[in-house]
Amino acid sequence: MSKQELVVLGRADTDACCPGLLTAPLDEDQAVELAKVFKALGDPVRLRLLSMIASREGGEICVCDLTPAFDLSQPTISHHLKLLRQAGLIDCERRGTWVYYWLLPETTDKLAGILTRPGQPVPVETRS
Amino acid sequence: MSKQELVVLGRADTDACCPGLLTAPLDEDQAVELAKVFKALGDPVRLRLLSMIASREGGEICVCDLTPAFDLSQPTISHHLKLLRQAGLIDCERRGTWVYYWLLPETTDKLAGILTRPGQPVPVETRS
Repeated sequence: MSKQELVVLGRADTDACCPGLLTAPLDEDQAVELAKVFKALGDPVRLRLLSMIASREGGEICVCDLTPAFDLSQPTISHHLKLLRQAGLIDCERRGTWVYYWLLPETTDKLAGILTRPGQPVPVETRS
Repeated sequence: MSKQELVVLGRADTDACCPGLLTAPLDEDQAVELAKVFKALGDPVRLRLLSMIASREGGEICVCDLTPAFDLSQPTISHHLKLLRQAGLIDCERRGTWVYYWLLPETTDKLAGILTRPGQPVPVETRS
């Protein structure tokens, strides 16, 4: 998973960009940028795709393993994946016939951070 | 802030409802419910409203203090506030002429929790 390691190394960037949603009023530019990411998450198919990608053992998943879980056409699935990718939530690489997807954890980390109240412990997700 | 205390006491409920977005594939019902909340956050005006409400000293804010920050009509602001309320992110109470809004922190806590990778520390928001 060299790609994910590269992503994690890039996390310093997110520290500089994260507005505090709960600690101070967002300015217009911050709100526009952040709304794009939340909008990408505001669809059940995209949430299911993201959860399948993020929870996949090994850290990446072939599009050929995503499509059968949905009663949707391949182009529709690809469109949803493109929106997740444009929001910086996932990335992908073509290898031969198939495209493989993986989570960009710095984006979900950033969202978790801005949704966390100062001085509050975050509820720990204990389910497998 | 007796209302916020009541909300915090109700947090046990959220433990039972939170799917793990990053730890396991969401089922369709979980994805539909969660998408509603993210969709409510997927708009710059609603994000700015939420940040103004959440960061307000004292924990609540009059709608009369929200509207002047936007170049939008009162009905438009009220519509956005209604969507945030329907998503369980805020609640409100009318007192005389004005309506007062406050954050429902169990919802943002829940979102922060499901966006947190298992075993990962959450980025701490240090800005004031």
